[in-house]
Formats: sequence, C-alpha cells, structure tokens
Amino acid sequence: MINSLNDLFHETLKDLYYAEKKLVKTLPRMAKQATSTRLKEAIHGHLAETEGHVTRLEEIFAMLGKKPIAKKCEAIEGLLKEADEVVAEIEDAETLDAVIISSAQTVEHYEIARYGTLVCWARQLGMDDVEALLHKTLDEEKAADQKLSGLAEEYVNQKAAA
Amino acid sequence: MINSLNDLFHETLKDLYYAEKKLVKTLPRMAKQATSTRLKEAIHGHLAETEGHVTRLEEIFAMLGKKPIAKKCEAIEGLLKEADEVVAEIEDAETLDAVIISSAQTVEHYEIARYGTLVCWARQLGMDDVEALLHKTLDEEKAADQKLSGLAEEYVNQKAAA
Repeated sequence: MINSLNDLFHETLKDLYYAEKKLVKTLPRMAKQATSTRLKEAIHGHLAETEGHVTRLEEIFAMLGKKPIAKKCEAIEGLLKEADEVVAEIEDAETLDAVIISSAQTVEHYEIARYGTLVCWARQLGMDDVEALLHKTLDEEKAADQKLSGLAEEYVNQKAAA
Repeated sequence: MINSLNDLFHETLKDLYYAEKKLVKTLPRMAKQATSTRLKEAIHGHLAETEGHVTRLEEIFAMLGKKPIAKKCEAIEGLLKEADEVVAEIEDAETLDAVIISSAQTVEHYEIARYGTLVCWARQLGMDDVEALLHKTLDEEKAADQKLSGLAEEYVNQKAAA
C-alpha cells in the first residue's frame, strides 16, 4: 500500500522503469515500420537515449537504496496497443509515417507528464540529485517530441497530403 | 482501411471523440475522490471544458460531412486503468490528491499530443476552420495541464510531503 509521497514516488518510478524498458524493445520495430530515412534515424536516435533513461532510472533506484523493479504500466500498454491497431489499418507508406510520428508523440507526452511529476515530487521531497537526473531525461523527452513535431510539419505530412 | 491522411484524420477524430466522452463520465468520479477543495474545483472546471470539447468535435464531424462516431480509444482506457490501480493502493488523503493530479496530467498530455497532431494534419489538409477549432481545444488542454502543475507545486505536494 501507498502511505506517503515517498511511497508514491517509488511506485511511479517502477511504472516508468517498465515503460522505458518496453520502449527499448518497441522502438526498433517502429523504426523498421517507418518508410522515410529521416524518421528511421530519429527513432534510432531516440532508442539510444531511451537506453540511457533506463540506466538513469537504475541509478535513481540505487540512490534510494532500492532494487530496480518494473511494475506493469497499463498506460504504455494502452498507448502501444492503440498504435499497433492503427498501423495495422494503414495501406499506404506515407500515411504510415504520419501515424508512426503521431503514436510516438503520444508516448513522448506520457513520459513528459510522468517525468514532470517525478521532478516536482523529488523537489518536494528534497532529493536534489534525483531531481537533477530526472530533469535531464525530461529535457530529452521534450526535445524528442519537438523533433517529431518538426518532422511531421516539414516532411512526412506534406508527402501524405500530396 | 486507411489510405490517406484524410482517412487517418477522420479515424483519429473518432478516437479522440471516444476519449473526450469517456472523460466526461470519469471526471466527476475523480473530483469526488479528491480531498482538497481547490483540486475538486479545478476538476469540475475542466469537466465543463471537456463537455465543450465533445461539442466541438461534433461540430468538426459535421464540417467534414460525417456522423460523430466514437471508436474505442485503447490509450485512454490504459491511462484510466493505471490511474484506478494506483488510487486503489493509496491509504492517505494527501497522497491521494497528489496521484489524482498526476493521473489527470497524463490524460492532459495524451490529449495535447493528439490535438497537436490533428492541428498539424488539418493545416496540411488545408482545413483552416477545423484547424482553428482544434487549436482552441489544444490551448485549453495546455492551460488545464499548467493549472494542475501549479496545484501540484504550490499546494498538494507540500501537504503530502509534510
């Protein structure tokens, strides 16, 4: 049971650890599905970052004196299930890229919300070093989302609308 | 099947229509679970906005000459399932408010991602009036997220950490 913000922080960390590990497994498939080279590269770049996020979460578990445990994250499961369902319905390559970007952005926003919350809680709990690590990941998730927005605006959607 | 960005736009509209309608049903329960008056008020305020978002989506369906159809949104189902699971584990009132804010923010960020994508696609498809309506909702979702962040920072978490 959860009796304090400390407990809640730890539970949310487990949820995010599951989500990040799941993404490490899922992103290579997304990159394979993508048709544009720039999108493939962007996903591969974010895969490398995501592996770093897993390691950073393991560091945070260690700083808290806890073992890194993943707890099934229903949110990421739902987001990825929705992404798979839409991808399965797509028949043309350009629209596929548009939907991959869109799905990836829902995942980025989930992480932005979660890391934003954890940064806030870490500050409230006076865990400065943990907060700094979480903030690095938060900034990378925001940058990844911006990059996907840029791709959507400049390139993929113009092709899909052509 | 989806053969064009137009099709994808329409499918995503149905997904979001389901999500907004689901939130209209869910937000009153969240407000009831919340313990702080300010959080209850914030959720009730956002419920009124959410009802407006449903109406706006119906207007957009009409502008496209389509019937408003809701298509099960696995993402919102996953987000709300996760929220329910965490709430069920909480034993103290202040931590409950912290988790309600956090869960509500994951939902806001899902909507920010989806409306952001639809605004981008509407622009690409040259649907200026639709884009303007979607942008209004996007701005309201961003404002709701900011308001929740403010509540988390200023009030609820300080109590939870006390």
